[in-house]
Amino acid sequence: MSRDLLYELIEALTILPGVGKKSAQRMALFLLDKNKDGALHLAKTLEECLAAIQRCEICRQLTSETVCRICSDESRDSYSLCVVESPSDVLAIESTGGFKGRYFVLMGRLSPIDGVSPDDLGIPDLLRHIQGAKIEEVILATSSTVEGDATATFIKDHLEGVKVSRISYGIPIGGELEYVDGNTIARAIQGRIVI
Amino acid sequence: MSRDLLYELIEALTILPGVGKKSAQRMALFLLDKNKDGALHLAKTLEECLAAIQRCEICRQLTSETVCRICSDESRDSYSLCVVESPSDVLAIESTGGFKGRYFVLMGRLSPIDGVSPDDLGIPDLLRHIQGAKIEEVILATSSTVEGDATATFIKDHLEGVKVSRISYGIPIGGELEYVDGNTIARAIQGRIVI
Repeated sequence: MSRDLLYELIEALTILPGVGKKSAQRMALFLLDKNKDGALHLAKTLEECLAAIQRCEICRQLTSETVCRICSDESRDSYSLCVVESPSDVLAIESTGGFKGRYFVLMGRLSPIDGVSPDDLGIPDLLRHIQGAKIEEVILATSSTVEGDATATFIKDHLEGVKVSRISYGIPIGGELEYVDGNTIARAIQGRIVI
Repeated sequence: MSRDLLYELIEALTILPGVGKKSAQRMALFLLDKNKDGALHLAKTLEECLAAIQRCEICRQLTSETVCRICSDESRDSYSLCVVESPSDVLAIESTGGFKGRYFVLMGRLSPIDGVSPDDLGIPDLLRHIQGAKIEEVILATSSTVEGDATATFIKDHLEGVKVSRISYGIPIGGELEYVDGNTIARAIQGRIVI
């Protein structure tokens, strides 16, 4: 049986998250038959990106530059710093357009059991960065898991002279109580605010 | 604002069918952070494939070789030829593993209104191919649309001395009558077979 790149491409596409054999077939035929220019651009961009990608020197977000687009944007508020677990969290918050400060990406959360220490998360860098820059508020947006909470608490305990806040956890907007899990409801009641 | 390849890659990924902004973000971060080897292989394969892709000389399927994997496979039955509309139809039938013959890909269906003539679909080549090779049965697997039916009828009318069949259309396996649309039910009754 001869080597046919069409089948290799289908196979290569199945590594993408959420893409099975059928979607990969559809994507391969679309790229090769319907949108060759887009496909070539995709291949080139992916290769360039792989060669250039690194962590931003300041916030540790993935970027092809030394300093990422957000850290180098002078128009952003430099007094608020949002601490998140992963690069996708930055993109998720950015997509809301509601936050104009800067970020720090931990690339994980504290977990002594898995051997993830504060050093692995760059927490010493974070603390130095907060002390060095004129940051007035640190917003901790780590996940609401045991490790995420522990990470937030650890960072809070090592910060002085700066306002530290935690994003709120509770019922999602549009969510109906009866379909929300018990932990979330408990958290929402615990975190109630006087109105 | 500096040029950041991360955002360009996300943008480039949204051309894929069924991939919106969110999936593209997830894919980009996965490729750059979790599976760099797979990502590089994907980029290289896509580029190679784009440079090499062509139509099989015999069946017109997309392939990186002169003659595709199926047409060059000696172990396949050379007496049955299945005529389909598009490259994805070949992959769909192949995935069932139930057909061991060869294919001919029309790359469309007859549509005088859109200016698609028998020549555009390579029907003269198909007829010559059937006459030249020792084909005993031609299975018409064009879609069950007006144009698909017309294409099948046109091909049938131009074939002589060979068995011509049409794949059956009706209720999908596991489908319940009450949820199937009227046209399909009408076709299923029309195409009933004596048992």
